[in-house]
Amino acid sequence: MADYKVPMRDIQFNLFELFDYEQHWQSIPKFAETTPELAGAILDEGAKFFENVTAPLNQSGDKEGCIWNEGVVTTPKGFKEAYEQYVQAGWPSMSHNVEHGGQGLPPSLGQIVTEMSGTANWSWSMYPGLSHGAMNTVAEHGTEEQKEKYLTKMTSGEWTGTMCLTESHCGTDLGMLRTKAEPQADGSYAISGTKIFISSGDHDMTENIVHIVLARLPDAPPGTKGISLFIVPKMNLADDGSVADHNGVSCGSIEHKMGIHGNSTCVMNFDSAKGFLIGPPNRGLNCMFTFMNTARLGTAMQGVAHAEMGFQHSLEYARDRLQMRSLSGPKNPNGPADPIIVHPDVRRMLLTQKSFAEGGRMLMSYCAKLVDLIESDDDEVAKEADAKLAFLTPIAKAFLTEVGFESANHGVQCFGGHGFISEWGAEQNVRDARISMLYEGTTGIQALDLLGRKVLMTQGEIMKPLTEEIHKFCQANEANPLVSQLVDATKLWSDMTMKVGMAAMENPEEVGAASVDYLMLSGYVTLAYFWALAAQKAQDTIDAGTGDLAFYQAKIQTAQFYFGRILPRTAGLAQTMVSGADNLMAMDVDSFAF
Amino acid sequence: MADYKVPMRDIQFNLFELFDYEQHWQSIPKFAETTPELAGAILDEGAKFFENVTAPLNQSGDKEGCIWNEGVVTTPKGFKEAYEQYVQAGWPSMSHNVEHGGQGLPPSLGQIVTEMSGTANWSWSMYPGLSHGAMNTVAEHGTEEQKEKYLTKMTSGEWTGTMCLTESHCGTDLGMLRTKAEPQADGSYAISGTKIFISSGDHDMTENIVHIVLARLPDAPPGTKGISLFIVPKMNLADDGSVADHNGVSCGSIEHKMGIHGNSTCVMNFDSAKGFLIGPPNRGLNCMFTFMNTARLGTAMQGVAHAEMGFQHSLEYARDRLQMRSLSGPKNPNGPADPIIVHPDVRRMLLTQKSFAEGGRMLMSYCAKLVDLIESDDDEVAKEADAKLAFLTPIAKAFLTEVGFESANHGVQCFGGHGFISEWGAEQNVRDARISMLYEGTTGIQALDLLGRKVLMTQGEIMKPLTEEIHKFCQANEANPLVSQLVDATKLWSDMTMKVGMAAMENPEEVGAASVDYLMLSGYVTLAYFWALAAQKAQDTIDAGTGDLAFYQAKIQTAQFYFGRILPRTAGLAQTMVSGADNLMAMDVDSFAF
Repeated sequence: MADYKVPMRDIQFNLFELFDYEQHWQSIPKFAETTPELAGAILDEGAKFFENVTAPLNQSGDKEGCIWNEGVVTTPKGFKEAYEQYVQAGWPSMSHNVEHGGQGLPPSLGQIVTEMSGTANWSWSMYPGLSHGAMNTVAEHGTEEQKEKYLTKMTSGEWTGTMCLTESHCGTDLGMLRTKAEPQADGSYAISGTKIFISSGDHDMTENIVHIVLARLPDAPPGTKGISLFIVPKMNLADDGSVADHNGVSCGSIEHKMGIHGNSTCVMNFDSAKGFLIGPPNRGLNCMFTFMNTARLGTAMQGVAHAEMGFQHSLEYARDRLQMRSLSGPKNPNGPADPIIVHPDVRRMLLTQKSFAEGGRMLMSYCAKLVDLIESDDDEVAKEADAKLAFLTPIAKAFLTEVGFESANHGVQCFGGHGFISEWGAEQNVRDARISMLYEGTTGIQALDLLGRKVLMTQGEIMKPLTEEIHKFCQANEANPLVSQLVDATKLWSDMTMKVGMAAMENPEEVGAASVDYLMLSGYVTLAYFWALAAQKAQDTIDAGTGDLAFYQAKIQTAQFYFGRILPRTAGLAQTMVSGADNLMAMDVDSFAF
Repeated sequence: MADYKVPMRDIQFNLFELFDYEQHWQSIPKFAETTPELAGAILDEGAKFFENVTAPLNQSGDKEGCIWNEGVVTTPKGFKEAYEQYVQAGWPSMSHNVEHGGQGLPPSLGQIVTEMSGTANWSWSMYPGLSHGAMNTVAEHGTEEQKEKYLTKMTSGEWTGTMCLTESHCGTDLGMLRTKAEPQADGSYAISGTKIFISSGDHDMTENIVHIVLARLPDAPPGTKGISLFIVPKMNLADDGSVADHNGVSCGSIEHKMGIHGNSTCVMNFDSAKGFLIGPPNRGLNCMFTFMNTARLGTAMQGVAHAEMGFQHSLEYARDRLQMRSLSGPKNPNGPADPIIVHPDVRRMLLTQKSFAEGGRMLMSYCAKLVDLIESDDDEVAKEADAKLAFLTPIAKAFLTEVGFESANHGVQCFGGHGFISEWGAEQNVRDARISMLYEGTTGIQALDLLGRKVLMTQGEIMKPLTEEIHKFCQANEANPLVSQLVDATKLWSDMTMKVGMAAMENPEEVGAASVDYLMLSGYVTLAYFWALAAQKAQDTIDAGTGDLAFYQAKIQTAQFYFGRILPRTAGLAQTMVSGADNLMAMDVDSFAF
């Protein structure tokens, strides 16, 4: 059951029917050469690669896991070879700057490749995935020399990169970090400390790994304002830039964990390792935001990946598995029983997965356009896109990973008892999905970022560009049977923002008390907008008498499902988020258990 | 983190304050000798045993798993020795009939021991747990000779039992099963076929295992009306009842699965194995209901177990882990950060776990009383208890396992990234919990049982004893600030029953379309009743000036949390369940994916 089929029809629908990427790419000079034909050809190649090369390693990678032996990590069988093929085909350089060996294709196109790679085999995809974040960080904050030395090698895929933030006593609260950077006579720094949870921290795929490390200078102020960013290569470089001797970096152990067994989660020991300051001193956390935003959108995609994977597997099973008869009479009268897809509750689970996978894909496609637009020559356009993306990123990260995990669980449920058995792959999908709500900022942290830092600090201004876009859509499409419900949902969202804001002025604890519910409500409403948009586009296409009728009807039906059976979850959230922080805060710490 | 502390104060509150078990046991002649002192002494012993003997094997059992080697299953290190101690202490016989070696204690007391055993180590608890179901089946349907031969040995714990229902092509749809039973000249039957997913199907703890097997007689009608029940021992018995030679039963393999690694999930091959008919021919499924009801309540308890385990672990972590400052100012000013229990969202997760663990325990305590009452000398009392239990069993099974899984997941979330790492135990709790929504009838099957077979077939009559009890409570406690919300919730439940019933008359698919939402709503309202009851009892005790104030205040605060932040989930369910089956059924099977 390791099969994965890229949902190319849906991807194409998003790109060229729903979001008009043809015009979009043309509007940005540096991406103007990306035609639908070029994009289509690249995506077809990608589909072939990930369906045939990395998807078949997903289950074996989980079973085998990574092996640590005296500081050296060996990845599961086939991972290294797949990575070699990936590099040979030029995938790492795709959406990176041409100056350092990139192909200069739009980030939005890269994101679809990330979706394919991640759905096919999330653990494997994290090796190039983390590298991607490290590359962006060096590209944005590195000196020309650093770019020449490190970025070009990462862009070609010869080396990979990692991000070293977390320490055992601090994950969310990076202000407490202790890793030290001592200035050396040659201008470098001696980095000492221990980092944990370093994804892809060590592996056998490349001869060098470029670690981006948060550490403190000797004179640094305490807290988050005293953190600096360093490049620390696994192998020191010779003068010609080639790999020389070992740096003082080693992998102390790897974690035994619930899922993503194919990816090495490393404890990294830095023992006076040679490091190089990147960006200004004590501004490391600010520089890190570049990476964090990339990583958060990447993790948001993990939600889509697990929803899609769960959906594909359970759909196949639901069509094949014969069990019981339909409540409205046999649908497979010549067989011993009906396929379980006839049962309404099985359909409810399948459509939940489908509406989250396709809905999440729409949200990600929309965000990817904004990522492209940040590269626009028009500063105003870039600024607007940046603000919208800042608003949507925590929603995408937390909401999509939450519903991705839900979808993965429906995947298990559709299989009945077989869902619990490893060979079907459904349970692996749940285990792999579980991390997505934790790393790159938990759901709770995303929710505080959304509600506290973004919505309330701007007094709701930050959400207006999106809600105004929704209003415009609703006004223009009043005949759409979903629109009145969307109007209500958007009004509810605004009302709740106001109510939570008022409550927060009285008591700051109300922010944390409401935040996750608020984030989830935001996600449900945002996805409702995209589903209404998709249904409208599908109806317009049907009305025009063009296209594949069944495809567009299914879009409309999935939208109807979403509005009928998912969106009403907001009713409960709207009540709970303003039920008062007291019901959370009143209990004495000692009274939680007796 | 394998620690488990029996929540004895809460158990005692349920037994002797909330549900007046003292009077209850006295009202049933056969249990009249069970005084609070006796029960307390037994439970204290149980707490010692499970806290110290089986809980420490929970994590190692998961890591090691069971090993299959040429038909022989070896359980994880220490499991066999723990079982020996368990038998020596007399636990298997506790709530079984004295005629066959039992101690004749009330099932309700046995259920608390099941909770302790299951929370300490669910995998281990399934060896005696399945045996318990097999014992009940033989006790109810076996001949005197069968009881003498098999039941006494299972009651003493010398042997264990299993239930062999599922085949690879049929789990839910037992009517399709193929295992054959050929009558033999000596009155026995030759049983041939393959069963899968047989929990505790083989192990190294006892010299014999008594399998209760569903199979077909040669002349049996097709479907569920042609299934008979057989006793098939692993080892044949000599004339004196001792173990003789191997019967034709063997374990073909064990499953690799998501969780409960310490329990063997076996493929059992029956190759002309000697079996003995139990109960009337072709009535096997009816006889099996005895077991199924026991098993469903047992699995319901699994929901409580994982909620409790998740709660205990994450509470400990949330009190210790320092990360970030409280939004309302530092609470641990001398430390580097505040313990995460100061954060409202962490409290939201902890209180969700707590309200489900304690709420589930109340529901189970209530059900256990009904189980006891079935043994009442008063037929009317027994009949009423039976009907109420029939109604509550699918709610308890499906709702408590769903919220138990949710709670286990909150457990992971409270740990942040550490929740994903095996050594903390939080992720094992999720993996172990996941099976509970699948076996003994999936959530979907329980929901159809509740709504289709029970509520709608009786036109709602079956729910009336409970809803009338709730109404009486509300009338008697109008001053309780939770009561008006409980009145509304109960009315909503009745209204939704009516609405779904009306819709189902038009279209039978509406039953399946509404069933899971209906079940979940039923669960939320039922638990709301128990939380209101608990809050009232706590308030009464506080008003009387007796007892430990902090304990009773925490009960009231948890009830307030439940009403404020959990019960409102019913608002969404009430909308989705009547959103029309069309949004599920309209899509063509071929249109789910393109």
